[in-house]
Amino acid sequence: MSAAARVARATLEKDAVRIVFGDGRESAFHLLWLRDNDPAGFHPQTEERVFDIVDFAAESGEPPAARAATAAADGESIKVDWGGAESIFAADFLRARAYDSRSLTERAERPTLWDAETLPQPPRFDYARVFADKAARLQWLRALAEFGIALVESAPDRDGAVCDLARLISHLRRTNFGEDFVVESKPDPNNIAYTAHALQLHTDLPNRESPPGAQFLHCRRNDAEGGESVFADGFAAAAELRRRSESDFRLLAETPLPFRFHDRGHDLRHRAPTIGLDADGAVCEIRYHAALTAPFDIPFEKTAAVYAAWLRFGRILREERFRIRLLLRPGEIVAFHNRRVLHGRAAFDPSSGSRRLDGCYIDWEDALSRIRVLRRELGEAAF
Amino acid sequence: MSAAARVARATLEKDAVRIVFGDGRESAFHLLWLRDNDPAGFHPQTEERVFDIVDFAAESGEPPAARAATAAADGESIKVDWGGAESIFAADFLRARAYDSRSLTERAERPTLWDAETLPQPPRFDYARVFADKAARLQWLRALAEFGIALVESAPDRDGAVCDLARLISHLRRTNFGEDFVVESKPDPNNIAYTAHALQLHTDLPNRESPPGAQFLHCRRNDAEGGESVFADGFAAAAELRRRSESDFRLLAETPLPFRFHDRGHDLRHRAPTIGLDADGAVCEIRYHAALTAPFDIPFEKTAAVYAAWLRFGRILREERFRIRLLLRPGEIVAFHNRRVLHGRAAFDPSSGSRRLDGCYIDWEDALSRIRVLRRELGEAAF
Repeated sequence: MSAAARVARATLEKDAVRIVFGDGRESAFHLLWLRDNDPAGFHPQTEERVFDIVDFAAESGEPPAARAATAAADGESIKVDWGGAESIFAADFLRARAYDSRSLTERAERPTLWDAETLPQPPRFDYARVFADKAARLQWLRALAEFGIALVESAPDRDGAVCDLARLISHLRRTNFGEDFVVESKPDPNNIAYTAHALQLHTDLPNRESPPGAQFLHCRRNDAEGGESVFADGFAAAAELRRRSESDFRLLAETPLPFRFHDRGHDLRHRAPTIGLDADGAVCEIRYHAALTAPFDIPFEKTAAVYAAWLRFGRILREERFRIRLLLRPGEIVAFHNRRVLHGRAAFDPSSGSRRLDGCYIDWEDALSRIRVLRRELGEAAF
Repeated sequence: MSAAARVARATLEKDAVRIVFGDGRESAFHLLWLRDNDPAGFHPQTEERVFDIVDFAAESGEPPAARAATAAADGESIKVDWGGAESIFAADFLRARAYDSRSLTERAERPTLWDAETLPQPPRFDYARVFADKAARLQWLRALAEFGIALVESAPDRDGAVCDLARLISHLRRTNFGEDFVVESKPDPNNIAYTAHALQLHTDLPNRESPPGAQFLHCRRNDAEGGESVFADGFAAAAELRRRSESDFRLLAETPLPFRFHDRGHDLRHRAPTIGLDADGAVCEIRYHAALTAPFDIPFEKTAAVYAAWLRFGRILREERFRIRLLLRPGEIVAFHNRRVLHGRAAFDPSSGSRRLDGCYIDWEDALSRIRVLRRELGEAAF
């Protein structure tokens, strides 16, 4: 156990046990929290919680009395005496779960926002190495998590190569376009991606309640004229909008806009704000796709203001400083956080050559899960 | 065209065209909205929007000048003259998309909340009929959408029967437990459902950013002692909590709680409020699962209040008036909205007989999409 995770002092207070760890970090643990999280309350095999504190609440919901008589520390653990029963907590268990504000800030993972100057091109990794070497795989996934975009090169030229890469992380996220898909100009397209039109920057499937998290696009052929790929960090664009106008930002964060995709077998509609905020108020998703934006169904009085804010956001996304461009070459697979990094392409001339991208999706939380498991396997993280 | 959808009067105002429809409904359409939604701006095959109003905004984002010179109505359509170009809107196109508050209220679909008195048992449908008859299928799905729960009986006793039923709606939503799964007592369980323990009411996979929408459980065998199923309408429980204490409700709607599932290959974590609100402030999801609730990581000052609110919510879910019970019989498939209707089971004695449920998930938006497509196919809905 590291010195930092040892208990230097444990003090019983009215509602809490206050711990000073070896490195001076001070954390209060509420008695209810300790009552709830006694390590003995977890299933030995599944490690899921078996103890359910609701069982000990009054019918009215009044919390169980949590009154510790003594808290003893031997450095490695603390013992809480409930006046009869007792709970023992390993010091490193508590340190890893400490919820004082410094500990929470330390554990929070915030993305690194970028623009064309700070990230002119996505970081690059090698297909074979990512398969062969867990450390390389972890490095790739950390770049994807941090920047929302990363490129893998030297992928084999075969169907399924992109799915194999994604499956290093998790199962695929199937959508109405199938488990995987091919982006090329098609004779009877049910969506604009399957034409040769330019695609302005967009996030995929905002018409779904939960649009896919990470998208993978494997360039198989790209010798048509045009077809350059464009990416932008939507979180950076949202931050820029906020810098220019807090009220525009708020309007786009609070006004759900309607999205719709329909073809013969589907009529998928969802309403959600352009800028999604998580429960802590941090930007957690962007929904932006002109082609799938249904006629606004917002109150008339707000129409002009919302259009103005939404157009200003749209114009920020057109600014070169936020866009990185690359002409994908055969064998390159670009992976990106679909609800953060917008993607688009220049029009191409299908008569001048062919352009084909093989694609698939996974859920974003599966990428974060894989990072944690790899860290565990590589001995990097205990918790 | 119905008389209601005809245009009785169209008046050009400063920023809008105000329309009085045949039945007296009055709707204002902002000129920007009309500029944005000219039917000519949609792709003829995909019906997606090709026109992108951002193209016409100033670099600063200033909206394009939308100044209609005249608006003419012949009853079936209105013509808007932009001073050069013109747009023609069919009256029923506008009526279907009218966004005055009455029209929006009319189109909003709100769930019917229930408790054990108002819905003692889930509505029942027949497996073969749901396959054979689109009207029966629509009726089943509408019950599922309205109540969040519906039961299909007389399903064949074979593997895959539950997936076949779910696929009437859409592709399956795969998770870390596979594309489909079998709930029974297993020797090396990685989750509590795979034991013979009682399961208190919970929603599945709250540790995912986007927990699955609809869950299907097909009872194959249920002759062990115990194992009765329990369901509760989480939206009704949330409404009850709010009735008792607005501040408890707000606390659970605003405080993200941490969830975690981990086994050898996964470490899936997500933080989200117990009660999810959509952008309009309506309850749209419940996340509640004692076994997957990780140690709270909320500020110390809020700990006691959040525990109190969360325990009161938990106790509401234990009240018999919110719970419906049924002993699933072989051949019955219960489908429910996983983020609305909580499910649980009594413990069972695996030595007394066997209990097996085959299960799978789909995304909720796919259920709503299927309802719209069926309505279109049955001639019920034009839009």
